[in-house]
Amino acid sequence: MSDPAALTATEAARALRAGTLTAAALAEALLDRVAAREPELRAFVHHDPESVRRAAALADRRGMSGPLHGLHLGVKDVLDTADMPSAYGSPIWAGHRPRSDSAAVALARDAGAVVAGKTVTTEFATRTPGPTANPLNPAHTPGGSSSGSAAAVAAGFCHAAYGTQTAGSIVRPAAYCGVVGYKPSYGSIHRAGMKVMSESLDTIGVLARGVADCALFAGAVAGRDLGDPEVPPGRAPRLLLTPGFEPGALAPETAALLARVADAARRAGAVVEDWALPPALHAAAAAHPAVMNIESAQALAWELRAARAQVSATLLEKMDWGRSQPPGTLESARAAFAAGQAAFRDALEGWDAVLTPSAPGEAPEGLGWTGDPVCNLLWTALHGPCVTVPAGVGPKGLPLGVQIVTRPGEDRQALAWARWLQHAL
Amino acid sequence: MSDPAALTATEAARALRAGTLTAAALAEALLDRVAAREPELRAFVHHDPESVRRAAALADRRGMSGPLHGLHLGVKDVLDTADMPSAYGSPIWAGHRPRSDSAAVALARDAGAVVAGKTVTTEFATRTPGPTANPLNPAHTPGGSSSGSAAAVAAGFCHAAYGTQTAGSIVRPAAYCGVVGYKPSYGSIHRAGMKVMSESLDTIGVLARGVADCALFAGAVAGRDLGDPEVPPGRAPRLLLTPGFEPGALAPETAALLARVADAARRAGAVVEDWALPPALHAAAAAHPAVMNIESAQALAWELRAARAQVSATLLEKMDWGRSQPPGTLESARAAFAAGQAAFRDALEGWDAVLTPSAPGEAPEGLGWTGDPVCNLLWTALHGPCVTVPAGVGPKGLPLGVQIVTRPGEDRQALAWARWLQHAL
Repeated sequence: MSDPAALTATEAARALRAGTLTAAALAEALLDRVAAREPELRAFVHHDPESVRRAAALADRRGMSGPLHGLHLGVKDVLDTADMPSAYGSPIWAGHRPRSDSAAVALARDAGAVVAGKTVTTEFATRTPGPTANPLNPAHTPGGSSSGSAAAVAAGFCHAAYGTQTAGSIVRPAAYCGVVGYKPSYGSIHRAGMKVMSESLDTIGVLARGVADCALFAGAVAGRDLGDPEVPPGRAPRLLLTPGFEPGALAPETAALLARVADAARRAGAVVEDWALPPALHAAAAAHPAVMNIESAQALAWELRAARAQVSATLLEKMDWGRSQPPGTLESARAAFAAGQAAFRDALEGWDAVLTPSAPGEAPEGLGWTGDPVCNLLWTALHGPCVTVPAGVGPKGLPLGVQIVTRPGEDRQALAWARWLQHAL
Repeated sequence: MSDPAALTATEAARALRAGTLTAAALAEALLDRVAAREPELRAFVHHDPESVRRAAALADRRGMSGPLHGLHLGVKDVLDTADMPSAYGSPIWAGHRPRSDSAAVALARDAGAVVAGKTVTTEFATRTPGPTANPLNPAHTPGGSSSGSAAAVAAGFCHAAYGTQTAGSIVRPAAYCGVVGYKPSYGSIHRAGMKVMSESLDTIGVLARGVADCALFAGAVAGRDLGDPEVPPGRAPRLLLTPGFEPGALAPETAALLARVADAARRAGAVVEDWALPPALHAAAAAHPAVMNIESAQALAWELRAARAQVSATLLEKMDWGRSQPPGTLESARAAFAAGQAAFRDALEGWDAVLTPSAPGEAPEGLGWTGDPVCNLLWTALHGPCVTVPAGVGPKGLPLGVQIVTRPGEDRQALAWARWLQHAL
C-alpha cells in the first residue's frame, strides 16, 4: 500500500479489518499530512500528535472495537471533549476543559474512532470566522461554521469530521471544500454536550471524502442503519429540481451546474421535474432568521450577561435583535416551520428527493466571510436529511456542489440517491 | 401583611411592584419556611441562605428588573448554575461546578428571579430517588424525578421551581404534592445547559402554587405570551375524557375522581365526552420506553464508559437494554411518535382539550419509589402542553390531580382551561 492516508474511511476500515494496515501506521500517515499543511490551513484549534498516536496504539492493542476502529474523526469545537479544550470559537470559553465528552464524541470513541483533534468553528457556530483557509485555494474561505471540519477532511487530515448545521454550516463548507457533507434528519445524532444555539434547528452531521464514509460514521453514532450507499438502488430516482427560494442569489455557474446535473441525471434514467416551491416553504424560509436568532439569544443568555464585551459585534447585533422581538414572533416563526414541514411532506409524495444547489457558487475569496447559507436554511428548517456531493468546478477552479434532500427520516434514501447522483455525473 | 411567604408568585409580584413588600422581606419570610421544614423534607441538594439574601438585596437595590423581579425559583439539579454545584443526581458529578448558567437559569435571572437553590432530582432525572419527602405526609414520596421542586413548592420554600419531564416527571410529582405543574409544548424552554437525556422527550417546565404563577414564570423565560389564566375564557370547553392508555393501572379513587371532575365540568357548562384513544396513540405510548432508554443511553455514553461503577443498577439495566437494541428499534419508535402526534392533532379537531388523570392515585408510601408515569408518558411523547391541577384528596388524605392536555403550541389554551377547571371544581 503506497499511502494509507489516501484511503477513504471505508477503504481504511477494510484494510484494518483485514490486518493489512495497523492503526499506528494509519495514524502516522495522516499525521504526516497534518504536519505538512496545517500551518497554512489552520483547520484545528487543538491538535496533539502524541494523543493521536496514543489512541491509535491503544486501538491496535485492543483490536477491533467497533465499526469506526482506528478511523480518524475531527471534532468541531462546539462538541465537548473531556481530554481536549472546548472553546466553542469564543474567547469567553478559552481554555475551557469540560468534565465529560459530548455524547457524539463518546459514542464515536465507543465505536473505535480516534479523535484527530478539535476543528475550528466560527464564533458559537455563527458568522464571525476563525483562521481556517480552503485547502483547494488558501486565499478562499472554506465556508463555515464547520470551517475546520471541511478543511481537515479536504486536506486529508482525517477520514471524517463532525459538523453542525443551523442554517448551512455542514453542506456549504463541504461544497466549498469539494467533500461530501451529510446533515442528517433533525434529532439523529444526540446533542448532549454540544454548545446548542437554536434548539429547533441545530443538527450534528458528518463531512467525509465519500457518501459511504458519512453513512459509516453517522450510522455508528446515531444507532441507525443507514444502509450501504455503494449498493446500487436498482432504479433511477424521481427528482424535484429547484434553485431554492432565492434563485437570484445564485452565481451564473450554479444555474449552469443545475442544468448540467439535471441532464446527467436524466441520461442515467432519472425523472427530473422543475419544482416551484409552495408558498408554505417560502414562509418557512422567511421564518428561519427569527427562530435562529431568538433561540440562539436564549441559548447565550449567560454569555450576554456575564461576558457581553467578549461577544463579537456581528453576533451581538443579531442577539440583541433576537432579544428585542415581541413574544409573538417566535411562536409565529415556529408555526411557519411546522406548516412548511407538513407542506414539504405532502409535496414529496410520489417523488424520491429534491435536487438543489449546495451553495450559491464557489467559495468566496478572503477569510473574512464564510459565505451565504441561502441554499441551505430552508432545508434545515424542514428537518429532512441533506447530502451534498461535489459536482465539478466553477470559473476559478473551485468546487461546486449539489445536494439531495429528502423527507425527515429518509436518511438512507438521501445517502443512496446522492451516491447514485455521483455515478450519474 | 401577615406572612409574605403565603403569597403566590403573582400576588408577591403585585406587592413588590406596588412597593408594599421588599425583596429582602420576602426572602426572609421564605427562608424562615425553609429553616423550619427543610431538615425533614430535604427538597434542596444545595441551599445557601446567604446567597439568597444577597440576590434579594441586589433586587431591592436595582429595582424592578423584569417580570420575575424578587420572586424565588427553585432549580432542579439537572440545570447548570455557575454559582452553585450541579450534580444531576449522580455521584459521578458530585461537586461539579459548571462555568455557566443554563439558559433557563440565566433567562430567569435576567427576568429578575432569585434562585432559591438547587432542588433534588432523581439520578439523571430517571428512577433512582433522592432523599426528598412529601410535605403533605413525609412518609410518602413526593414523586419524581422533579422531587425537590415539587416538595419545595408545596412547602412554600419558593414561588415556583423548574422541573423537567421525560415520562411524567413534572406532572406526577406536582399532583402528588398538591401543586400545579406545567409541562409546556416540547421545545418551549431552551435546554442549553441542561443534562439532557432523551432529546425527543425532555421538556423543561414549571411547578408553582397556581396556574397563573406557572404562566408567569414560563412565559418570562420562553419568550412567549402565555396569556393571563385569571381572565375567564368566556365560554366552557369541549373536553375529551380519557383514563389514559392503561386504565387498569388506576387506583379506584382515580376512576371516581375522573367521574367527579367530569360532572363538575359539565355542571359548569363543558361538553365532556368519553374518548377511546386511537390505535396510533397506543402505539406511541408503547414506543416511549424505546425512545427514552435508547436516547438516554446515547446521552450517557461518557458516563457509561468512564464511570460505569457509579451508575445505579436500576439505571444500568435500562441503559444496557437501550444500547443492545438493533438500529431499527429507535427508528420505528420515532416513527410511532410521529404517527401518534399526527393522530393526536386530528383527534382534537373540534375539541379544546383532553381531560385525564395526572397520576394513578395518591403518592405511594415510602421514599424508595417515585411512582408510575403511566398517566404521563403518552402526552410527553405527543409533545403537547400538560397542566395538572389539584383535585381533591384520596383515601389517605393525600392530593389527587387531573390534567388538561392540548395540542403542541396550544399552551395558552391549556393554561386557561386548567384554570377554568379549577373554578369548576
